[in-house]
Amino acid sequence: MSKRELTKAEIEKLIELSIKAKDKAYCPYSKFHVGAALLDENGNWYTGVNVENASYGGAICAERTAFVKAISEGQRKFVAIGVSSDASEYTRPCGICRQFMIEFGEHLQIFLIKPDRSYLKVILKDLLPDHFKL
Amino acid sequence: MSKRELTKAEIEKLIELSIKAKDKAYCPYSKFHVGAALLDENGNWYTGVNVENASYGGAICAERTAFVKAISEGQRKFVAIGVSSDASEYTRPCGICRQFMIEFGEHLQIFLIKPDRSYLKVILKDLLPDHFKL
Amino acid sequence: MSKRELTKAEIEKLIELSIKAKDKAYCPYSKFHVGAALLDENGNWYTGVNVENASYGGAICAERTAFVKAISEGQRKFVAIGVSSDASEYTRPCGICRQFMIEFGEHLQIFLIKPDRSYLKVILKDLLPDHFKL
Amino acid sequence: MSKRELTKAEIEKLIELSIKAKDKAYCPYSKFHVGAALLDENGNWYTGVNVENASYGGAICAERTAFVKAISEGQRKFVAIGVSSDASEYTRPCGICRQFMIEFGEHLQIFLIKPDRSYLKVILKDLLPDHFKL
Ligand SMILES: [Zn+2]
Ligand SMILES: [Zn+2]
Ligand SMILES: [Zn+2]
Ligand SMILES: [Zn+2]
Repeated sequence: MSKRELTKAEIEKLIELSIKAKDKAYCPYSKFHVGAALLDENGNWYTGVNVENASYGGAICAERTAFVKAISEGQRKFVAIGVSSDASEYTRPCGICRQFMIEFGEHLQIFLIKPDRSYLKVILKDLLPDHFKL
Repeated sequence: MSKRELTKAEIEKLIELSIKAKDKAYCPYSKFHVGAALLDENGNWYTGVNVENASYGGAICAERTAFVKAISEGQRKFVAIGVSSDASEYTRPCGICRQFMIEFGEHLQIFLIKPDRSYLKVILKDLLPDHFKL
Repeated sequence: MSKRELTKAEIEKLIELSIKAKDKAYCPYSKFHVGAALLDENGNWYTGVNVENASYGGAICAERTAFVKAISEGQRKFVAIGVSSDASEYTRPCGICRQFMIEFGEHLQIFLIKPDRSYLKVILKDLLPDHFKL
Repeated sequence: MSKRELTKAEIEKLIELSIKAKDKAYCPYSKFHVGAALLDENGNWYTGVNVENASYGGAICAERTAFVKAISEGQRKFVAIGVSSDASEYTRPCGICRQFMIEFGEHLQIFLIKPDRSYLKVILKDLLPDHFKL
């Protein structure tokens, strides 16, 4: 599902929201700020940040934060997510987030966004080939 | 911080939101619906649900969902959270959620809510005594 | 590192240990038994099973179990892991495990093993392309 | 179950193994070395260390490492666990580990061990009162 292309305005908004979200990250341990913006099939937007914990294993990434926000509002179908950090290289979703997101569809478009607003689009399926099925 | 008592109206709202949130739970594996409602120190409300995954370890509980929503909006201080399920016994936060929440203060008031709207108030600190510190 | 081919005897042992490990799985919630066998660069073998929890998010998969066993014994370099379940289709590592394992090298050989002992070999790098880097 | 007292020799071994295990910790992110030693009801010993990940949420603590080792060997009943770090204060199990361990019994004896070998004994149940039940 959701293979439609984003409009130029939507891409601009995805970039803008992802970059702005980053400021809200709670990352006193890694100091690595990540922001995400998620667009669902109904045109709603949700932002996310990484939320860390003194027990490192308790950390929740920006992508999962954006997803649970949307899911808790009843949404289940998604078009695209933007992921932004302060790193000079693209920050890709970790395997935990890939696993979490693919539960809701493998065609999700992922926009990796650099601080200078340049981006690279990838498809979730290509980041988690042959994913685990129960 | 945040030791103030909730007003009767706030308690009513906590109960109402927690119970209603439950309907949005994504729990195809456990079929165990949990809803949460979180009140921050600025008077904002955030709801949460459990979001499960084919890889069970990827699951995020309702309490953590509510927390990351609030945190991603910039909030860091919380007054109370309500937790609701369809079980006849009170559903208490799991140890993962206790660990996650205590990062933001040990005096959080937790309202355990039954389907009939009766509730039990506990304090986070009492559910996770002598918590881990890095 | 560790790109050497396994001998026929090693593959047989990987299959044997993975399948046998499965019996020890603690999976009262999913009833999905998974076994793993890990071979390190020094020729040591470690088995793993999935260990579930009433709070689903607490579950640890068979692959991670095998890895932490080896790591706690001081090992850091691995050649191959076998993964076995009772499913008729190959059971692939979830994204959480892919993320966990790639910390120790992307060239790990993964043997997906069916109950009839037939197997498919994949490389970790191909299951988690362009992995997250901090 | 398992409420029996440890002998003086067993306590010495618990301390010794916990402290020695620490050296094997994989903790490049936190630099916080933790070691654990677990004694099961059949008299077997298992050690554990914390194993971290570039994606912080992937970290597995020393206590859980020791547990999955034992469980993957078929053990389900435990008497005591020792937890050791280099901190001057006692390092207590995090909420994630408390949740993980209580699945196998709430009477587990936990020995918090300082570098000088002094220790404090606590019972799991007291560290995770009224734990979550599915
Ligand atoms: Zn992630
Ligand atoms: Zn929980
Ligand atoms: Zn896994
Ligand atoms: Zn822990």
